[in-house]
Amino acid sequence: MMKKLFAEFFGTFWLVFGGCGSAVFASQIAPSSNGQMGILLLGVSLAFGLTVLTMAYAVGHISGGHFNPAVSFGLLAGGRFSALDLAPYIVAQCLGAITGAGALYVIINSSGTPDFSTPGSFATNFYDAPVYFEKSYSMIAAFLTEFLLTAFFLIIIMGTTDKHANGKFAGVAIGLALTLIHLISVPITNTSVNPARSLSQAIFVGGKAISQLWLFLAAPILGGISGGLVYKFLLQKESEVYD
Amino acid sequence: MMKKLFAEFFGTFWLVFGGCGSAVFASQIAPSSNGQMGILLLGVSLAFGLTVLTMAYAVGHISGGHFNPAVSFGLLAGGRFSALDLAPYIVAQCLGAITGAGALYVIINSSGTPDFSTPGSFATNFYDAPVYFEKSYSMIAAFLTEFLLTAFFLIIIMGTTDKHANGKFAGVAIGLALTLIHLISVPITNTSVNPARSLSQAIFVGGKAISQLWLFLAAPILGGISGGLVYKFLLQKESEVYD
Amino acid sequence: MMKKLFAEFFGTFWLVFGGCGSAVFASQIAPSSNGQMGILLLGVSLAFGLTVLTMAYAVGHISGGHFNPAVSFGLLAGGRFSALDLAPYIVAQCLGAITGAGALYVIINSSGTPDFSTPGSFATNFYDAPVYFEKSYSMIAAFLTEFLLTAFFLIIIMGTTDKHANGKFAGVAIGLALTLIHLISVPITNTSVNPARSLSQAIFVGGKAISQLWLFLAAPILGGISGGLVYKFLLQKESEVYD
Amino acid sequence: MMKKLFAEFFGTFWLVFGGCGSAVFASQIAPSSNGQMGILLLGVSLAFGLTVLTMAYAVGHISGGHFNPAVSFGLLAGGRFSALDLAPYIVAQCLGAITGAGALYVIINSSGTPDFSTPGSFATNFYDAPVYFEKSYSMIAAFLTEFLLTAFFLIIIMGTTDKHANGKFAGVAIGLALTLIHLISVPITNTSVNPARSLSQAIFVGGKAISQLWLFLAAPILGGISGGLVYKFLLQKESEVYD
Repeated sequence: MMKKLFAEFFGTFWLVFGGCGSAVFASQIAPSSNGQMGILLLGVSLAFGLTVLTMAYAVGHISGGHFNPAVSFGLLAGGRFSALDLAPYIVAQCLGAITGAGALYVIINSSGTPDFSTPGSFATNFYDAPVYFEKSYSMIAAFLTEFLLTAFFLIIIMGTTDKHANGKFAGVAIGLALTLIHLISVPITNTSVNPARSLSQAIFVGGKAISQLWLFLAAPILGGISGGLVYKFLLQKESEVYD
Repeated sequence: MMKKLFAEFFGTFWLVFGGCGSAVFASQIAPSSNGQMGILLLGVSLAFGLTVLTMAYAVGHISGGHFNPAVSFGLLAGGRFSALDLAPYIVAQCLGAITGAGALYVIINSSGTPDFSTPGSFATNFYDAPVYFEKSYSMIAAFLTEFLLTAFFLIIIMGTTDKHANGKFAGVAIGLALTLIHLISVPITNTSVNPARSLSQAIFVGGKAISQLWLFLAAPILGGISGGLVYKFLLQKESEVYD
Repeated sequence: MMKKLFAEFFGTFWLVFGGCGSAVFASQIAPSSNGQMGILLLGVSLAFGLTVLTMAYAVGHISGGHFNPAVSFGLLAGGRFSALDLAPYIVAQCLGAITGAGALYVIINSSGTPDFSTPGSFATNFYDAPVYFEKSYSMIAAFLTEFLLTAFFLIIIMGTTDKHANGKFAGVAIGLALTLIHLISVPITNTSVNPARSLSQAIFVGGKAISQLWLFLAAPILGGISGGLVYKFLLQKESEVYD
Repeated sequence: MMKKLFAEFFGTFWLVFGGCGSAVFASQIAPSSNGQMGILLLGVSLAFGLTVLTMAYAVGHISGGHFNPAVSFGLLAGGRFSALDLAPYIVAQCLGAITGAGALYVIINSSGTPDFSTPGSFATNFYDAPVYFEKSYSMIAAFLTEFLLTAFFLIIIMGTTDKHANGKFAGVAIGLALTLIHLISVPITNTSVNPARSLSQAIFVGGKAISQLWLFLAAPILGGISGGLVYKFLLQKESEVYD
């Protein structure tokens, strides 16, 4: 069990350090002295997906590779995960995420004092703020988006790891699903679909990031549970039993 | 059979919600307050491909993963799909696409009234309109492009799922083929190759998107049928029988 | 044998139609009326690689999936291809490439008269011309680049299809190798590494594209032969015999 | 053994020629006469990853596909590599890297005299220099970043090649891990995680690139060793024995 929790710890550390790190360090487009532009929202989307793709193949065989409390809840609802493991998994995920955010904080801090006053800075999630393209999305839009995307994320996770599926590609499909999810929703909420990732950034930034955090805990978890149930009852073969 | 139709419904929902959603929410380049640019046409192209790649591995083992009436027609022509299943598959695909477009509409609408007056907005398909780079492509150019791209899409689908092919990679190749198709043709027609996707966006936008819809039904279906026949008669081993 | 030649024909058509097509239609960055940018050199690089990745899995089981005279020459030098098949393969590849370029020409022409006066237009290869970033590369730089990149392309093709390699991934590795090759060398020569692709674009453009064509025939073929020999004599197990 | 060293030589040549080459030739954004932009930091990140992905499938079955002294050190610490092979592997890697950098130098030089006076030019690594986005990162930030990223790189390498993992995907996961690592850290240090790559560029540029080289030797090697030990003691099954 300890190895499983280490796997979840390192995997969620990597998700936050890599995904949020690419956003924090590399996504800007202000021209630099050698005429370079950053990796754009496209690069950030790719980075989040690759954290999961790489760790799914690296430690997925140890812990199942959740790296996300909404995934653990969803797999529980879908009958693929034990209720007894839920709490320790979530603790390991949150600790990993916070440690990853802490490492980003140390790197930034060792090169000057960071300014976290604008919404979305340090890759926090948000709603009702015109962060991208001067456009705000409402709380309802944010909730619906996070709910739907996490539900489909779980349908993809349940489906690609189904006994009848071509399971060796699950890590590719699940990782790139997270990339796709970011391609859709970064301008809406900065994309959570993962309560541990939202929590870890918010506690370093505080303020509005904390007061809006409830949405990025509730919507992904409810979405994840819904996705797990949809797959189990509408898509999975009835006779299927998972231990 | 119901599970197959649910698989086609959710898959086509995801194709429209993810592919068109990324275009609607994330592709703009107008500079934002944190100096970010969107995902560009490249990100939109990637998003469309990833909707198919992810769902092919998630529910392909249930329904075959068409998510597109032109694919169903093409596989029928190529001898890989039953005529009896054609109508229900297409109904499920169109319902999924329309529901996906509806979800996008609700998200946009809950954050202000959308303006669909410019051609190509809400990711609709078009021809004879200078949407990208101030350049228009004629009806003939649009028809030829959609026809050829759907024909090759079907050659790739037929080929990668051939009994003699390395079939486990079909989902990767087919998904990335859709990305490639978008990389070529977004500036020409906003890329359809999928009547359900074109229909679903057009009914929310109306006007020119409806009056030009015929091309995005006819060209992909004729192209799909042609591609299925080309593979069957010019490329497939003669002795090959598919049940 | 006819099926093999059809496979090479359609594969090379797709390489030119998709790779050069994405460059011709979608790579511009002039701002469009909806504030969009094109797919950039990155998208073009991805498109070329995906033409090979998709067709390798679709028709590679039929013809081996060369789609490139330099690859056929290199595999012959490396002992993996029969001298008797060389001429028909190259004819099929060149016909496919020219037909693909012709389809692009028809699409462009049906929407206004094209202007091919600037070097590199219609995705032709070039040297000694400041096409990208106002910088020219000399004939020697162009030759060395095309030679080296084709040699490594063949090392990768020989290696990934080696009996001891994880051969099912060859299509992914070879396709993405072509993407990588473009990421390096589009600004130097517009990237050939494929005489059929260079020929097909040059005959529609004429002028300098024809007078510089010799380099894009000679350097890739010599590079391909060198790469095949390097793999055979320095890397392949001595006892290995391929029929 | 010679074949193994040739594999490491060509693989590390390709890593430097392809990864650093894409940065040197194709990453600029200064507008060109045909209105094109380069491949951006995103394209450079992709290029580095693809050098490893392609060579892992091409020659990984020969040498294991390290292409990086920090990987060799890390696999030694993790119990997956023999101490006797360490020195010859590192020599082959450094010779390959230097030859690759030399080939880039010849191509640049044959088209005009290069200017290497700004930090980060010729894709050298650096710290304490405002290369990207007018922002400098301190020596401590650079060390911590290189250390952590190489440690996770080794966790991913150890994990994906673990006997219990889905090992055929190791090349995809390891290659894309290197892409991810660049997406995070190009603006911090230009990304090393590979002493051979840093050395090879620095010896052609000299000056500050040489005086800062120690960090790009020490941090990756210490990080690699740490990652190997973390995987071995915290994640690997205790009973596991590798010969």
